[in-house]
Amino acid sequence: MTIDQAERDALYKIIYSRRDVRSDFTDESISDAVLSRILSAGHHAPSVGFMQPWDFILVQDEQTKQAIKQGYEQASIESAQQFLGSKRTQYQQIKLEGILEAPLGICVTCDRGRNGPVVIGRTIKPEMDLYSTVCAIQNMWLAARAENIGMGWVSIIHDEVLREVLEIPKHIEIIAYLCLGHVSQFHQKPELEEIGWLPREELSQLIHHGKWQKSKS
Amino acid sequence: MTIDQAERDALYKIIYSRRDVRSDFTDESISDAVLSRILSAGHHAPSVGFMQPWDFILVQDEQTKQAIKQGYEQASIESAQQFLGSKRTQYQQIKLEGILEAPLGICVTCDRGRNGPVVIGRTIKPEMDLYSTVCAIQNMWLAARAENIGMGWVSIIHDEVLREVLEIPKHIEIIAYLCLGHVSQFHQKPELEEIGWLPREELSQLIHHGKWQKSKS
Repeated sequence: MTIDQAERDALYKIIYSRRDVRSDFTDESISDAVLSRILSAGHHAPSVGFMQPWDFILVQDEQTKQAIKQGYEQASIESAQQFLGSKRTQYQQIKLEGILEAPLGICVTCDRGRNGPVVIGRTIKPEMDLYSTVCAIQNMWLAARAENIGMGWVSIIHDEVLREVLEIPKHIEIIAYLCLGHVSQFHQKPELEEIGWLPREELSQLIHHGKWQKSKS
Repeated sequence: MTIDQAERDALYKIIYSRRDVRSDFTDESISDAVLSRILSAGHHAPSVGFMQPWDFILVQDEQTKQAIKQGYEQASIESAQQFLGSKRTQYQQIKLEGILEAPLGICVTCDRGRNGPVVIGRTIKPEMDLYSTVCAIQNMWLAARAENIGMGWVSIIHDEVLREVLEIPKHIEIIAYLCLGHVSQFHQKPELEEIGWLPREELSQLIHHGKWQKSKS
């Protein structure tokens, strides 16, 4: 099956305009058809040994969201302590999640025991199943963008909070808590770039020819 | 910027027809323009705290590929021991890499120290930078497919082999060794599904509503 130029350009448009959304969620809910396409895109990610280790927990209940938000707030206070001086002040002013505003939360997990203990391709690099799950998340992120739905990854929260609130068994690894919803806008650039937290790296500086080039490390 | 239905459909076509390619590489080399678009797609993945921790080492030299192939072969012998009975015989018959056939190898790494020791969003979940790098790889996988280029992830090799052969410094984490090239075909389904190694999971069984549902674990 050949991909033509218009289709290729569409992918690049989606990749370049995808954002980590924290603000800008509206309260319009996501239709079942759209949600189903986003989840199916995740499910068709590559997975090591075709083990498909992912699960998706859908969170729409207000009380559950409140409990997760509390977990974020606690983790955010701890996190702020790690930044020094003006970076701490700036950190505290950045909105980093949309847990309550986004109509839908999705917790994505990895069942490392799925389909037996020995998995093709995980024999030497055990983290491959975690990485497969991240591939699913990136597929979902692009699918969401293609549906004009914003998505954000909330990483400032302890796994233990999500485990308790969502009753996730101990043998299941927690990879991400995602917030999804319609948005009033997609930012032109990543917000951390827009506010001058960090600049975009020069791609040519990240490419090495043949072997690692010392001048770039 | 709105994504229209044709663009959305294009993304789904690319996601559903993307494959982990091990066979079927031709020796036609990848043009600089195509390679540049694939790398740029990776570079525009989301990254925690906008740290962009990735580097890309391009491998085209025959001797380097031979050394990597040797590393794969050693790791594959070790791996086969882990499978029992008929699964071992089947495992040994599956082609799992295209290191020598693919015109281009790309080693993707993660520099955990990039842009300072404290990273927004990595304060609680330290693996977030590794996961960002995996998001870059998934972007590259889709971009490659959109360019009608096959890509495969070789995970049956010890990081130490890649580190030595590609002279990667100790402080740099190795995430993936990828093989890329034009292909004679893209398989209709994942090869491990085609040969009956494992079936596709039923998506509805992987979706939990509200909290983890015990009947699904």
